[in-house]
Amino acid sequence: MTTFDLIIIGGGPAGYVGAIRAAQLGMKTAVIEKAKMGGMCLNWGCIPSKAFIESAKLFKKIADAKSFGIDGIDKKALKFNWKKAAKRKDRIVMRLVKGVEYLMKKNGVEIINGEAKILDNEHVMVGDTKYTCDKMLIATGSRPLRAEYKNIDQKKIMEIDEFFALEEKPECILVDGGRINACEMALMLRYTGSKVTMVTESDSLIPFLDEEIRKFVMDKIKKAGITVYTGAEISKDAEDGVYVGDDYVECDVILNAKRRRAVLPEMEELELERNGHFLQINEFMQTSVPNVYAAGDVTKQFFAQVASAQALTAVNHMNDIKETLDYNKLPVNIYTDPEIAYVGYNEEQLKQKGIDYKVGKFPISVNGKAMIEGETEGFVKVLSETKYGEVMGVHIVAADATDMIAEAVMAMRLESTVDELARVVHAHPTISETFMEASYVAADRPVHI
Amino acid sequence: MTTFDLIIIGGGPAGYVGAIRAAQLGMKTAVIEKAKMGGMCLNWGCIPSKAFIESAKLFKKIADAKSFGIDGIDKKALKFNWKKAAKRKDRIVMRLVKGVEYLMKKNGVEIINGEAKILDNEHVMVGDTKYTCDKMLIATGSRPLRAEYKNIDQKKIMEIDEFFALEEKPECILVDGGRINACEMALMLRYTGSKVTMVTESDSLIPFLDEEIRKFVMDKIKKAGITVYTGAEISKDAEDGVYVGDDYVECDVILNAKRRRAVLPEMEELELERNGHFLQINEFMQTSVPNVYAAGDVTKQFFAQVASAQALTAVNHMNDIKETLDYNKLPVNIYTDPEIAYVGYNEEQLKQKGIDYKVGKFPISVNGKAMIEGETEGFVKVLSETKYGEVMGVHIVAADATDMIAEAVMAMRLESTVDELARVVHAHPTISETFMEASYVAADRPVHI
Repeated sequence: MTTFDLIIIGGGPAGYVGAIRAAQLGMKTAVIEKAKMGGMCLNWGCIPSKAFIESAKLFKKIADAKSFGIDGIDKKALKFNWKKAAKRKDRIVMRLVKGVEYLMKKNGVEIINGEAKILDNEHVMVGDTKYTCDKMLIATGSRPLRAEYKNIDQKKIMEIDEFFALEEKPECILVDGGRINACEMALMLRYTGSKVTMVTESDSLIPFLDEEIRKFVMDKIKKAGITVYTGAEISKDAEDGVYVGDDYVECDVILNAKRRRAVLPEMEELELERNGHFLQINEFMQTSVPNVYAAGDVTKQFFAQVASAQALTAVNHMNDIKETLDYNKLPVNIYTDPEIAYVGYNEEQLKQKGIDYKVGKFPISVNGKAMIEGETEGFVKVLSETKYGEVMGVHIVAADATDMIAEAVMAMRLESTVDELARVVHAHPTISETFMEASYVAADRPVHI
Repeated sequence: MTTFDLIIIGGGPAGYVGAIRAAQLGMKTAVIEKAKMGGMCLNWGCIPSKAFIESAKLFKKIADAKSFGIDGIDKKALKFNWKKAAKRKDRIVMRLVKGVEYLMKKNGVEIINGEAKILDNEHVMVGDTKYTCDKMLIATGSRPLRAEYKNIDQKKIMEIDEFFALEEKPECILVDGGRINACEMALMLRYTGSKVTMVTESDSLIPFLDEEIRKFVMDKIKKAGITVYTGAEISKDAEDGVYVGDDYVECDVILNAKRRRAVLPEMEELELERNGHFLQINEFMQTSVPNVYAAGDVTKQFFAQVASAQALTAVNHMNDIKETLDYNKLPVNIYTDPEIAYVGYNEEQLKQKGIDYKVGKFPISVNGKAMIEGETEGFVKVLSETKYGEVMGVHIVAADATDMIAEAVMAMRLESTVDELARVVHAHPTISETFMEASYVAADRPVHI
């Protein structure tokens, strides 16, 4: 079959989720994937990184197991076995990729293996085969640009997919970048004993975070023993390392974790409006050519959950279901230690918008369950506008922040006020109580502080 | 000072939370506590049990650390050090008790140490001092009855507070009871190597659970190597053990985890209507004598969060803030492994009520983050009524169910439908995605299954 209602280019969290939804709505759907189903996220992104991070956190926890009443661990004998952690990661990735392939089959979605070349808004070539479609969804992802490493020995430079495929853990590494995956990987490597340096052009790590959390991250990274260069870049090559500005930095490997740019298929007779290096889309994910949609990284949205939500929105729109996405009510998740997650505005944004707001802040350190788990770093910060108390943003730094944020997203989506939130009874003892407590503070009736 | 606006008898999660709220609302408040501030929950209940459980789970996890890529652990050398785990528990309890005492002081609440004797609805004696109050809140808790162990050597029998104070872990124990704390303690002991037998008069463990979850618990407990006698009781004493019916069961210790009964203060000239062994209250927590309120275990509500919520409701009512509690939208939390939590109705209850419902069920095992954490047991089950899709109940079996339930409680409190829930974007990869997926299933558009 070479004619489809919908051809999706790219089998990542935008592409495969969009495909399932399209099939459910009765569209004959194909996904063209040049590498592996699941895309960057499953194969070289979210999943592998979190698998390594989980191993690294457990490694760190075990070193502290004595305080929990566990005897018989010889700290000196403990070794992080990168190869085994990588094998575990591979098993998880394989299982999830197979899961995606199964879902494609189950839903009657055709997978076309190969690289897509777009002929026009209704035709796509893969190899020698020409496919025809009524609608198209471009979900081809992104990657960091490599061209900038002009004067550096290319053997030192490693892309994230190469990094995850390493046989041995690099013992001395420079992470080039200061955004989310840079911080995640730097901490993971540091926890497992590597010497780590970070270099970022920005003046802080993860610059779009709430100011208080930015400071927290910088502190945490430095306390972990990672050297951080801000407002800096790699200047020239050197033996067993590189120069950052005028400073010599020792490293075996440079992990390219710089800003990402869209990876777009070759397009012959199709011109799509751009947003810098990315594709310009409207609220229904349509590009400047109405039957061609785009979702995920190619639209400058780098979170898997946003990609999936965009794809669902696009496919719904193709079927006359007109739901839009409120990007401000989507969660952001970061797997540092502790984790970070937020939804909505931060304090700087509220100030810029001239919205009067209140801060309800509650420290994780006084929460009973957090003490029990031995994970007492962090805080929950609920920002609400002064007049009605509507929640404007929730920022969480906590061991399990990426799961905790779900409740906040729900509350924001349902336009809850802090007063309502404070009345939602939370189980005791749980970490989630801190969210209720922060809401209490914002509602001017704190209990546990 | 011996005259108060409010005297609270009992310094547990009902008493101390109620006291803070009362003080915030301007009431001169005293709490009478005969043992330790924080009550059963902090000192001999929720907190100590969870501290031991955390240690036990880590002990089990470490035995499996190799698969995460951590070398150098000699499984044979691993030993659970009860004394150290108990010391850690003591430090946490002490910190929390001090926290409660600090909160009392900060809010200007007087703590009166001693046993209260109620003279009438406005007067309470502690030792030789007579206190006068305008309102009274009875929050004196509960304990399992011991009188039933008539023919058993009393030295074998242990109350939960004695158990937590043990110097050594009992290596062979009979847990007499099949409800929440019985299951929690049985698993904790088993994970740390003890021989454990459970005895319950009921025909299942934790009988009020959703049927599917009841089966899950029974399976899990048995697979862990715990012998369970249902519909049975201890019949007679024996050497190094007891008889359960006609079967000899070896044990050094019997942990009394039977049904609990209210612990009430002595009352001279005050007669309060009863509900069996407990106090009868109305929707504002008033007993049959309107200025005397009750909250927590004495009202036959055994969860700390319910006790606190009841106390807030009571204190609000004393100040003409008339909010009631919807008990059906309060979370239930159980720290087995995996954890269990639910809110709202279960399937049997919906059938009994004649409500047509849909089941949206999603297994934890296919969730990426669960695979990463190595915690893939369990499921999320969302029950919604057929007509509008309003959520009627959410039942979760998962490693972190007690925290996950917060989102479901929020959704139910805000009267969300499964269709709305399914549209709340969840961060990827997180366990919380399973809740979205279960809602998708209930809304007839599953994605990842």
